[in-house]
Amino acid sequence: MGREGILVVVSGFSGAGKGTLMKALVKQYDEYALSISATTRKPREGETHGKEYFFLSREEFQTMIQENALIEYAQYVENYYGTPKAYVQQQMAAGRDVILEIEIQGAMKVKEQYPEALLLFVTPPSAAELKRRLISRGTESPEVIEARLKRAAEEAEYMGDYDYLVINDDLDTCVKEMHALIQAQHSRTSRQGKFIQQIKKELNEL
Amino acid sequence: MGREGILVVVSGFSGAGKGTLMKALVKQYDEYALSISATTRKPREGETHGKEYFFLSREEFQTMIQENALIEYAQYVENYYGTPKAYVQQQMAAGRDVILEIEIQGAMKVKEQYPEALLLFVTPPSAAELKRRLISRGTESPEVIEARLKRAAEEAEYMGDYDYLVINDDLDTCVKEMHALIQAQHSRTSRQGKFIQQIKKELNEL
Repeated sequence: MGREGILVVVSGFSGAGKGTLMKALVKQYDEYALSISATTRKPREGETHGKEYFFLSREEFQTMIQENALIEYAQYVENYYGTPKAYVQQQMAAGRDVILEIEIQGAMKVKEQYPEALLLFVTPPSAAELKRRLISRGTESPEVIEARLKRAAEEAEYMGDYDYLVINDDLDTCVKEMHALIQAQHSRTSRQGKFIQQIKKELNEL
Repeated sequence: MGREGILVVVSGFSGAGKGTLMKALVKQYDEYALSISATTRKPREGETHGKEYFFLSREEFQTMIQENALIEYAQYVENYYGTPKAYVQQQMAAGRDVILEIEIQGAMKVKEQYPEALLLFVTPPSAAELKRRLISRGTESPEVIEARLKRAAEEAEYMGDYDYLVINDDLDTCVKEMHALIQAQHSRTSRQGKFIQQIKKELNEL
């Protein structure tokens, strides 16, 4: 592709449709690679190492932390979760835009290390629609739904720290918009240093 | 449209195809309004006040300067040229993205007053292609072409001060890309303050 990939961080409310959106994006366009997280939790039925997660022992994970081989990591309950640096950097060097689906705290850590990362926040068009989607899944108890909505209210405070909002109303439209938005970033002058140097050189040699 | 328009400043090398590009953009999409400049030069055959330019007397123009009614202005040879503020602001308030085709110095003045303005720089894919286009017009002398290329080399120093490069290789592709790029800006969190406030309020009231 002759270009360097963009690191795209995607966060958003639980129920906003992030997962579906990103699967559709990766399926429809060749430009993307999904980052694969590392975890110390045990694989579930049907999960494969290097596909859903890199499944590591606690020792292996701690070695990665010590060797600064993770872009960000966090501990939930008893398990570690993190983003291995090597895979992300390989894909970006190969010209792919790498998508990282992570929580807000992780997103802020990524932005510190990669100020050029593109931070997207996925939201439904309204709070009522978020509630409707959480209920219509039919898989969570009223208490869990209540907790998710409370969490969404807390997370909303950080929306302004992201670069762009991705309002997920209609899935197909949203995938197209998200793709256009990410691809437009390749035209930023800050990402076009090589082109600018090249045309300056050519113009001075004419 | 329920949204506020974006002020889009377009500059670029003479011969890059800015004019054709912008005419195509305005023709194909409803979102845009082209800013109309004011000038003290006399109308040419077929030019209409309020269409190509607002044709003003020297006194009228100087009154606009004094009343701070111009976003930017400059004097070329004996005539003033400038961008009236009122028209731009009306169109933006009506939700249109207003396109201003101006020189680099003017673009920098606009950015000072409207830090949220989007600055685009139009360029052909290479210096050789720029030269080819200037020659193929068949309307300019070799001296004029030489002078334009020299000017392009000077202007290239400012490319990095713009937000995005618009590389005009194939016209149709370029119009689509430019449209996608401008429309993506509406999703910037910095432009989505109302939506963010609204959904925060709704989430807290659920």
